[in-house]
Amino acid sequence: MAEVTMDKIVSLCKRRGFIFQSSEIYGGLNGAYDYGPLGVQLKNNIRDFWWKEMTQIHDNIVGLDASILMHPRVWEASGHVSNFSDPMVDCKQCKSRFRADQIDLGGACPTCGTRDSFTEPRNFNLMFATHIGANQDAGSTIYLRPETAQGIYADFKNVVSSSRVKVPFGIAQVGKSFRNEITTKNFIFRSCEFEQMEMQWFCKPGTDESWFGYWREQRMAFYHKMGIKPSSLRWHQHGPDELAFYAKDAYDIQFLFPMGWQELEGVHNRTDYDLGQHQKFSGKDLTYLDPEDNQRYLPYVVETSAGLTRNVLMALSDAYEEETLDGGDVRTVLHFHPNIAPITVAVLPLVKKDGIAEFTSKLEKELREDFSTFFDVSGAIGRRYRRMDEIGTPYCVTVDYQTLEDNTVTLRYRDSMEQSRVSIATLVATIKEANKAYKRVE
Amino acid sequence: MAEVTMDKIVSLCKRRGFIFQSSEIYGGLNGAYDYGPLGVQLKNNIRDFWWKEMTQIHDNIVGLDASILMHPRVWEASGHVSNFSDPMVDCKQCKSRFRADQIDLGGACPTCGTRDSFTEPRNFNLMFATHIGANQDAGSTIYLRPETAQGIYADFKNVVSSSRVKVPFGIAQVGKSFRNEITTKNFIFRSCEFEQMEMQWFCKPGTDESWFGYWREQRMAFYHKMGIKPSSLRWHQHGPDELAFYAKDAYDIQFLFPMGWQELEGVHNRTDYDLGQHQKFSGKDLTYLDPEDNQRYLPYVVETSAGLTRNVLMALSDAYEEETLDGGDVRTVLHFHPNIAPITVAVLPLVKKDGIAEFTSKLEKELREDFSTFFDVSGAIGRRYRRMDEIGTPYCVTVDYQTLEDNTVTLRYRDSMEQSRVSIATLVATIKEANKAYKRVE
Repeated sequence: MAEVTMDKIVSLCKRRGFIFQSSEIYGGLNGAYDYGPLGVQLKNNIRDFWWKEMTQIHDNIVGLDASILMHPRVWEASGHVSNFSDPMVDCKQCKSRFRADQIDLGGACPTCGTRDSFTEPRNFNLMFATHIGANQDAGSTIYLRPETAQGIYADFKNVVSSSRVKVPFGIAQVGKSFRNEITTKNFIFRSCEFEQMEMQWFCKPGTDESWFGYWREQRMAFYHKMGIKPSSLRWHQHGPDELAFYAKDAYDIQFLFPMGWQELEGVHNRTDYDLGQHQKFSGKDLTYLDPEDNQRYLPYVVETSAGLTRNVLMALSDAYEEETLDGGDVRTVLHFHPNIAPITVAVLPLVKKDGIAEFTSKLEKELREDFSTFFDVSGAIGRRYRRMDEIGTPYCVTVDYQTLEDNTVTLRYRDSMEQSRVSIATLVATIKEANKAYKRVE
Repeated sequence: MAEVTMDKIVSLCKRRGFIFQSSEIYGGLNGAYDYGPLGVQLKNNIRDFWWKEMTQIHDNIVGLDASILMHPRVWEASGHVSNFSDPMVDCKQCKSRFRADQIDLGGACPTCGTRDSFTEPRNFNLMFATHIGANQDAGSTIYLRPETAQGIYADFKNVVSSSRVKVPFGIAQVGKSFRNEITTKNFIFRSCEFEQMEMQWFCKPGTDESWFGYWREQRMAFYHKMGIKPSSLRWHQHGPDELAFYAKDAYDIQFLFPMGWQELEGVHNRTDYDLGQHQKFSGKDLTYLDPEDNQRYLPYVVETSAGLTRNVLMALSDAYEEETLDGGDVRTVLHFHPNIAPITVAVLPLVKKDGIAEFTSKLEKELREDFSTFFDVSGAIGRRYRRMDEIGTPYCVTVDYQTLEDNTVTLRYRDSMEQSRVSIATLVATIKEANKAYKRVE
């Protein structure tokens, strides 16, 4: 099987409208990406799958959508103002700036070649700063949030008092975060603007270790349910040198990306550190009165923090295959789980004439209520199947002369390329059943 | 019927967890709001309804999700760098800043009382600026997008070349935009961080007026389908003094908010102005070669631009009623269309004992796959119904002793408060049918 490289993924993404570089006609903006017609559907499907699993199917998790712009004290309390930085050096000669850990400090400036020209390393904060209101002074400085989690902590009290939730419970959120990464790389893996899917689980101190184990299991099961190859997923426990000072324990779910094993999601036992910090900095009582035993405490937090944009890259990498067929032809196919495929059903007339195109178009419209569909009339049917394989469409429905006689169509399955004859009357149900029964052949 | 005031809406939103002020524990951030457990569901449902109607049901519209951070030349081309501003004055004495059109320029400073202390009005740009990369100079200045539309124009060529779309076609996008509004007001109506649902329809010059009429009809029909009272919606055509200089014609859909008639959505004939500007500023050929007649042209654009956050405020205002019941009691009820209600079905045990709570909890879990559900065991059943009315839950399912005998439950309808006995075997289908048949009684 041919190797899956990042170049192949990037090329497919651009060619078929999954992902473009932001502002490409202006030369692009580094570290920012646009999700094209297929990419936004893929991303939305992953987002909706996560959201439904978390807030609708799971017990005791409510949703939240906090704003990107928050009060600047939030980021003092969280530690981001003082600690969220990289050490940088400037060349005194040409004024170029570099990350200290990425150049040889005793060497020549990579820009102008001058030796011994670097300043001492200084910390450069990764938060994007802007100003709110009419005055552009220090007092009006605010930040684009570098993570969604703090919005959940800041709203903890409001959620408890308005939503009849009882500890243990979770707050789930999907949203954009921003980091002024000097070194963006690996396509959408590390970008300046990205999306997170985070859930903060509030529990009683002493129960946190057991919940930590529970959520590790749940989160790995989520990726299996999404159809990701289990062999491409593994756990990585943070060692003493990686563990954040407030974290009691932390595991990452890693995925085997084209560039190697990298973090996809973190499951962290953050203790009562965050609520404690916000209690201290806001002066508000954030403790919880447990109605079970009338105890008052700051809940512990088990966090599950996944990158939605990283999930998109994972889904693409995991699904991508250049498959050599019997006879030697190679087809490029994306083996997306039907629940996340951008288009679920392509509806294709075998020929255009004799009313077959019109019949097909009408059928396609009828399927829209239940599925994301695509109508394609141009080219030989084999080429149309290949185009659908390449964007991961799990089902192709083909209308031919027999259809006009007996109201049956050909249903073609992407992975096996098998075809079966199905009555139009049972087509929706057949596809829904196939979705439920879908299993990725590894 | 008691008047619907903004104060009542704001109070309900905070009390029941629809909407909170951002960073409230820190005194709040002006013009930024957080959507709580019910608010985020309401907002997501409206977003998903719009997205499905636009990209899945309608012909020839594809989706896009462009980044918030874009190349700064985009905003030069669009005119925002030079024109998107309010005139401001400073008090020379106390340095306070005011919007020139909101104070008496010949009068005393509202802050310090000094007379004749104002500077000449100067233009203050409403875009939030920040810096990308390691250097904080003019060359690294970028902006948070003040509208989502420009992302669509900038990607027009990429979408055409990757997605097999043919003019006429549309690109739909939902996303956040940011404006440094000095005067935020009316709750989420005008805020610094807000969400838009925009669709840009690209068509051949000469067909634009006909499409403009088509999209006006479509967009009004959308709100009727969402269940909004037709009497609370009206058209407002832009007069010569309101019309943007590049617009050929423009209509707003206005809604009767608690503070009066205000814009909810704009339908604008933007001509080829935007593509023309981006062609000029980027130096890239953005013309389209029409395969029908081999003509090359810059498409005209008909834009439908709705505020998602304004839609949320509309949905709340439209749904809110303090209803006087027979007997004189008053209930607060939100008459949301079932398709946008945050919770679809509440599942309630009449009593806790004799296994009824356990049976109900099991039933509630079974319904989760199909609906957003809520389990509530505390308080008299009448109070539980009222709590569900107040958050707009269209259906309550009550389990009682009879249920244990014959597997039937009581299904209570929010608007009519009527109850009927339904078999659990047909409960899902009955609720889905009721959703489809739902009609708001005005």
